[in-house]
Amino acid sequence: MSIGIDTGGSTPHLHASLSHALHAGAKFLVAPLIHPRYRRDHRRPRAEPTTRSDLLLSSEQWAAQVVGKLSPWLSLDSPHAAVRRRAEEAFKAEVGWGAHLSLSAILVAPPAAACVNLARHLQWACLAAPHCQFLVRLRMCADGGDEAEGEAEEGGGTAWAAWNRLRSLCEMAPNLGVALEVTADLPDDAAEVARWCGEPVKAVLLPTSIFLTNKKGYPTLSRRHQAVLAQLLRYRPRLIVVGRHDDHAEGLSAHINYLLFLASKQPESETERMERPYYDYLQAPLQPLQDNLESQTYETFEKDPVKYKQYQEATRRALVDLHPPGSPTPVVMVVGAGRGPLVAAALAAAREAGRRIQVYALDKNVNAVVTLQNRCRSEPEWAECVTVVSSDMREWQRHEAAPVKADILISELLGSWGDNELSPECLDGAQLYLKEGGISIPCDYTSYVSPLSSAKLWNEVKNWRELAKFETPFVVAVHNGFPVAPCKPCFYFSHPHKEADGGPPDNSRYKAMEWQCPLGALIHGFIGYFHSTLYKDVIISTEPSTLSVGMFSWFPLYMPLRHPVLVADGGRVQAHFWRNVSRQKVWYEWALSEPCASPIHNPNGRSYHIGL
Amino acid sequence: MSIGIDTGGSTPHLHASLSHALHAGAKFLVAPLIHPRYRRDHRRPRAEPTTRSDLLLSSEQWAAQVVGKLSPWLSLDSPHAAVRRRAEEAFKAEVGWGAHLSLSAILVAPPAAACVNLARHLQWACLAAPHCQFLVRLRMCADGGDEAEGEAEEGGGTAWAAWNRLRSLCEMAPNLGVALEVTADLPDDAAEVARWCGEPVKAVLLPTSIFLTNKKGYPTLSRRHQAVLAQLLRYRPRLIVVGRHDDHAEGLSAHINYLLFLASKQPESETERMERPYYDYLQAPLQPLQDNLESQTYETFEKDPVKYKQYQEATRRALVDLHPPGSPTPVVMVVGAGRGPLVAAALAAAREAGRRIQVYALDKNVNAVVTLQNRCRSEPEWAECVTVVSSDMREWQRHEAAPVKADILISELLGSWGDNELSPECLDGAQLYLKEGGISIPCDYTSYVSPLSSAKLWNEVKNWRELAKFETPFVVAVHNGFPVAPCKPCFYFSHPHKEADGGPPDNSRYKAMEWQCPLGALIHGFIGYFHSTLYKDVIISTEPSTLSVGMFSWFPLYMPLRHPVLVADGGRVQAHFWRNVSRQKVWYEWALSEPCASPIHNPNGRSYHIGL
Repeated sequence: MSIGIDTGGSTPHLHASLSHALHAGAKFLVAPLIHPRYRRDHRRPRAEPTTRSDLLLSSEQWAAQVVGKLSPWLSLDSPHAAVRRRAEEAFKAEVGWGAHLSLSAILVAPPAAACVNLARHLQWACLAAPHCQFLVRLRMCADGGDEAEGEAEEGGGTAWAAWNRLRSLCEMAPNLGVALEVTADLPDDAAEVARWCGEPVKAVLLPTSIFLTNKKGYPTLSRRHQAVLAQLLRYRPRLIVVGRHDDHAEGLSAHINYLLFLASKQPESETERMERPYYDYLQAPLQPLQDNLESQTYETFEKDPVKYKQYQEATRRALVDLHPPGSPTPVVMVVGAGRGPLVAAALAAAREAGRRIQVYALDKNVNAVVTLQNRCRSEPEWAECVTVVSSDMREWQRHEAAPVKADILISELLGSWGDNELSPECLDGAQLYLKEGGISIPCDYTSYVSPLSSAKLWNEVKNWRELAKFETPFVVAVHNGFPVAPCKPCFYFSHPHKEADGGPPDNSRYKAMEWQCPLGALIHGFIGYFHSTLYKDVIISTEPSTLSVGMFSWFPLYMPLRHPVLVADGGRVQAHFWRNVSRQKVWYEWALSEPCASPIHNPNGRSYHIGL
Repeated sequence: MSIGIDTGGSTPHLHASLSHALHAGAKFLVAPLIHPRYRRDHRRPRAEPTTRSDLLLSSEQWAAQVVGKLSPWLSLDSPHAAVRRRAEEAFKAEVGWGAHLSLSAILVAPPAAACVNLARHLQWACLAAPHCQFLVRLRMCADGGDEAEGEAEEGGGTAWAAWNRLRSLCEMAPNLGVALEVTADLPDDAAEVARWCGEPVKAVLLPTSIFLTNKKGYPTLSRRHQAVLAQLLRYRPRLIVVGRHDDHAEGLSAHINYLLFLASKQPESETERMERPYYDYLQAPLQPLQDNLESQTYETFEKDPVKYKQYQEATRRALVDLHPPGSPTPVVMVVGAGRGPLVAAALAAAREAGRRIQVYALDKNVNAVVTLQNRCRSEPEWAECVTVVSSDMREWQRHEAAPVKADILISELLGSWGDNELSPECLDGAQLYLKEGGISIPCDYTSYVSPLSSAKLWNEVKNWRELAKFETPFVVAVHNGFPVAPCKPCFYFSHPHKEADGGPPDNSRYKAMEWQCPLGALIHGFIGYFHSTLYKDVIISTEPSTLSVGMFSWFPLYMPLRHPVLVADGGRVQAHFWRNVSRQKVWYEWALSEPCASPIHNPNGRSYHIGL
């Protein structure tokens, strides 16, 4: 963790201040780019230097140990043209100086509500110094600021609104970030903190004034402040302690030690540890019908600590319900058996239930079939009960009639958004082998969706510079994102399935959805989950409110919007989702209709589809 | 002008109806794609045809003489899934049939306020039948409709709001248009009609019920209806008379004749005739400092019937004011003299004022200098008074000092947006040759700007599929557009110019602007004009409220927005414009900040600049 120190105003002796900071345990020092003594007077002759020399430190030290700070008096949005021009000139000189020193980051004072000219100059700076991060200082609560530095007032809107305006005007420049100041007052609404989790918070400022003093005289944070900090630490920002050395006996080292202690108290969960490498990494969804999985992929998914336990329990209860002791041996068919985890779960369920079963294990992947056949040879229980069939579940019947019909049909065909790996189409085919009154595990599944704010994910998509990517859903462990409203159910499928009119099954769907968003946000797309009833109340779910904790087989699905859309506080989001089916393929289309109409994404599946 | 007939419901005998229509003077007939008798019943066996045969007419007739009409009962946005699915199936069949017949256009019944699924299907249709126009029927006033056909209600919003939602969802498909029904009631607000002038109104429907009957028993339109129709006719839509033959003694021929008569009463003005070929045709602005104009271009602009008259009058008055009879011969310098029109105007002004003058005619274009020198030989007045100088006005002095200083400095360096051809920079250089107290003609100029709605222009820019084009201002005779609010002044320049602080002239500018928009609209960018004071109250202007009528030298400037933005009724638009100057170039940047923040366009002049 990188902790730095901002001692406020002047830093007259940079060398001494830096030594002091490093001695206190800091990794870097925040220093004004222009010493206030040199406050720019445009009439002053140029011969006098405007700031200290670049020879004061080595290049490595400037880059690693100093974060620059723009002068707080740069009123780029002043109504007075002369003031504004002087500020523009000084801004350019200061940024130029920071770039000359190869600083890794420059702090920008809190923006005024009207910050359009600041935005223009920041955009210029981001382009002119692409390796430097420009971090806009924003206060978590409006009144908690440190007024001492005479920074610009935020005026009307919230800090988030000013930030949102700023980054929209700068078109989400990749090196523009947030330096979030944790204030003494914290927002009453937890969502306000969560909203920052969708933003590029690259630094967190902690003024010494928000620290309490414990009985031994050491600085601590209140529980609420600790919780907020823990939430922000998940995004691994720089920390900056803002205060004076001489306010405290031990300088600021006690604060730094305390923060290091807090950070060490946040152990990563097993799931977090596993998921971290995948955070915000976009993956194209699988095409399970067109492609065969590799052995390695099977291996990874077989390790899920939750999924197969739930299948086993569902199967056990189905066996108990369907087959009172003494009835004929039930037939269990596992369609899409892969390397056999569901077969093993079914056999374990039968053991638990004290039932004999006969198992048919189908797979279309001939490589997986090799594994299944080998298990029949090497495992006595398999040898006794399991018949392996090498066939596509949609076609078995066409080639040779299934020898018997199943009492229980077990499958694991769900995708990140439930039906998106074509479980409905596959099971429509497979249910021909299910007895009248037989049970499908899963019984049903529902996709869920909510609007998502995530500049990070949207920028990842944008970097491809291709329309098609904005019309493609991605599987992704969303980390740097904020779900703007709780998710709601979208498409529902149940098995076995019969159309009311007796016609062929219709797996196309259309759903108009609506959310109320108490807190305004910039929407970058939608995040999709699923909930599936395996049998009765045995479920698996990635939907947050019913999440199967520890289950790692699925990341959510991110469906991008081509243009980010601002929703006001208390605003309404209306979106529309279609699941379309043709003879060759299945695809989704989606569109926003409130607060404004977006283009319909992926018309006719032009950018993305799942092959049948 | 193409006038057709829609006889409403059934058209049982297409042949007869078509003959009847052609006989009445129509060019085409509107006919339902599916005969209502065949109203689709999805349980009916397929063997029975769903509509009449394609052999009924020749391909040419179908394409030229029939406009199709979708069944009005297609409730694609029905809350009942079964109704919706039946409608979807029928919609596809009808569109497919229309495409099979190569119809040139298909009318779509008025959309409901919630029309998202209709939008999805229209987008599909526009892609599936790219050569067919899909014209959405929309009523000018909500209650003026012909309820007889049982069309969908428009529900909450206005027809325009439904249309705006529809075309946004369809991403402004090029073959999606408006069939605007002129209703008995007309909107009280003229802007509501003007707003349609920014939309692709491809057909205008005129129900016979809105016609009055004159003393002789012939159909006529009220004056207000005539005015509205005249406004729409400027966009050359198809006209469709909606009514029954048997309602009127002479069928509908009287209506058609009357419309032909009305159209013939709308003579084009000279300006319109001249401008029509340039309507909505985007041109990159001139680079007058980098490029030399061609003789042909000079010739065209010299014909302006207003501009040189105004220059002559301004010069005359300046001569009279500056030089009481008897004072020394005043020196007039024409900087950028081209082929000499301003020299001629100055000489004429001197004649009118009864003054002698000495004229210096500068131009940097050596080809134009040839013309100027020849005029000095062939025209006695020129020989006597005019000295030709081949030099760039910014550099004359560097090479050889100007022999005298001017009393009056005349230039015509204005661009479509005033300063955008770098008049300020040029005149800063040229004013070195102006005496203290001398006069510059023009004395000042102001650029004006207003938000513009024009799907047409925006689509033209989009067709280039290049970000850079969305960051380029275009010179264009805006025709199919709607200025959302009256324009306001933006940048102001005056000459001769002195900075308050005595420093070098600063021609950079920044302006934050705001408009109230009584009527909501979709904003596609900004339209720019200029107003220039030549001398005292002698002006030239393209700004609508002070327009120099007949002056054709300038079309307005269109500055696109990368994404169209919806402004609500009574909403506020805030935009920002920068004029930036570096040593090599001048460029504009612009951005929207209300109702939402757009990216800043053209940062650092990356897409467009004017070279110095």
